[in-house]
Amino acid sequence: MSDGAAAAAGAAADAGAHADPAGWLDAVRFDERGLVPVIVQDVHDRRVLMFAWADRAALEQTRGSGLATYFSRSRARQWRKGEESGNTQRVHEIRIDCDGDALLYLVEQHGGVACHTGRAACFFRRLDAGGWVQADPVLVDPAHLYRRQTP
Amino acid sequence: MSDGAAAAAGAAADAGAHADPAGWLDAVRFDERGLVPVIVQDVHDRRVLMFAWADRAALEQTRGSGLATYFSRSRARQWRKGEESGNTQRVHEIRIDCDGDALLYLVEQHGGVACHTGRAACFFRRLDAGGWVQADPVLVDPAHLYRRQTP
Repeated sequence: MSDGAAAAAGAAADAGAHADPAGWLDAVRFDERGLVPVIVQDVHDRRVLMFAWADRAALEQTRGSGLATYFSRSRARQWRKGEESGNTQRVHEIRIDCDGDALLYLVEQHGGVACHTGRAACFFRRLDAGGWVQADPVLVDPAHLYRRQTP
Repeated sequence: MSDGAAAAAGAAADAGAHADPAGWLDAVRFDERGLVPVIVQDVHDRRVLMFAWADRAALEQTRGSGLATYFSRSRARQWRKGEESGNTQRVHEIRIDCDGDALLYLVEQHGGVACHTGRAACFFRRLDAGGWVQADPVLVDPAHLYRRQTP
């Protein structure tokens, strides 16, 4: 390879990493609404914290900021986890599944509470013989969780 | 409480647990297609194995058989994981999230391979600076994984 070719290859590699940062998004198969499901797992204890959806912009914002960002279907906009509660999620790793239609975020959960109910994770109900039972404790009073919102 | 009332309460509790076994499904919020997302996690090492969808019948079959059953959107029917490969999933626990629109199965993965590519899990690609990289090895040749199908 000539120096010129090497420089060009280097520039192309840089382009792949920087100038064309959206290349990785082409592997993501968004659904008819432009959304992809995201499973959110604690990077330390591997607990599944929550389940959410992301659109292309939310994925770009997640990668750009390092903070987990989703698409809120109820608010119809991007939503950075913790923007109200302060309980952000620092993304350590993003994975994609074999057919490209589901993502996995491995995150560090600020404050140790991912669920709006004040629990560590949203999957706190377990199916028992008699039905659903609450299996995990409330760690923070939800009224305090969102106190940043109230003046 | 009189003995009669206690007996009636016991009967009601039994009814909740046995005579009306579908009561637990009323807490599940199926989407407009009648499906709910299911996150599948290894009960031992907590690895997220795969992501799938289930309809009401698949959930009933899962609970009835103890074997993870999903709804295949491509085949438009219930699909018991491993029905072709033999790599079934014994369900140890079912959890539901705070708003009832996502489920989590904690399973024992028979054969140690959940992905049709012959890997332990479907989330084997990790996002790196340059894009997606394969992070987990192929454990079983996919040609052997589905050998039960070929005569």
